[in-house]
Amino acid sequence: MYKPKHHIFVCSSSRINGEQKGFCLQKGAVDIVNSFMEEIMERELDGDVMVTNTGCIGICSKGPIVIVYPEGVWYGSVTADDVEEIMDSHIEGGEVVARLAL
Amino acid sequence: MYKPKHHIFVCSSSRINGEQKGFCLQKGAVDIVNSFMEEIMERELDGDVMVTNTGCIGICSKGPIVIVYPEGVWYGSVTADDVEEIMDSHIEGGEVVARLAL
Repeated sequence: MYKPKHHIFVCSSSRINGEQKGFCLQKGAVDIVNSFMEEIMERELDGDVMVTNTGCIGICSKGPIVIVYPEGVWYGSVTADDVEEIMDSHIEGGEVVARLAL
Repeated sequence: MYKPKHHIFVCSSSRINGEQKGFCLQKGAVDIVNSFMEEIMERELDGDVMVTNTGCIGICSKGPIVIVYPEGVWYGSVTADDVEEIMDSHIEGGEVVARLAL
C-alpha cells in the first residue's frame, strides 16, 4: 500500500510556478530531502516512511521546516545533519527530537 | 498558532529543481490549490486549515492527489470542482468524500 506510517514533509520553498527561491531552499532543503531518502532506503523503510518536498509553509524565519504526519510534529531550523537523529529517535524510536520541535 | 487542525497537501508535481512537469500539475493542480485557498478564506478557516503544494507523491496514475493530515485520507482524480465538497463534507462535516478516497 502506498499510504505510509510516517509521512515526512520537507519545505523546499517549491513554488507552484516553478520559481526557485525561498528561505528553506537556500538553507539546504535539497540536502535534507536527499538525506531522508538515503536514510529511508538504507533502513529499508521505504514502504513505511515517505518523504515529500513542499511549497512554502509560511513560517520562513523558523526554517528549514520539516513536518511529520500523522503525528503533527513540526521541526524548525533543521539541517541535513539532523536527519539521522530524527530517523533514529522519532521515526524508529517514537521519541520526538525535542531540541528541534516547534 | 501555525499548526493547523487540518493540513491539506495538494500534489503540484513541484520538483525540487524547479522543473515544471508532472501529471498532477498538467491536470489542474494549480486550480485545486487556488480553490482550496479561496474556500479557506471565504469560510474564515485560515487559522485551522492550511493548504500546501507538494512534489510528486509517486502514484501519478491516480492523480491529481490530495492528502489530508492528520487524518491520513488520500483523495485521487481530484478536480477544482471537487474542492467545495471536500471542504463541506470532510473539513467542516467530518465525513470523508468516499467517491474520491483512495
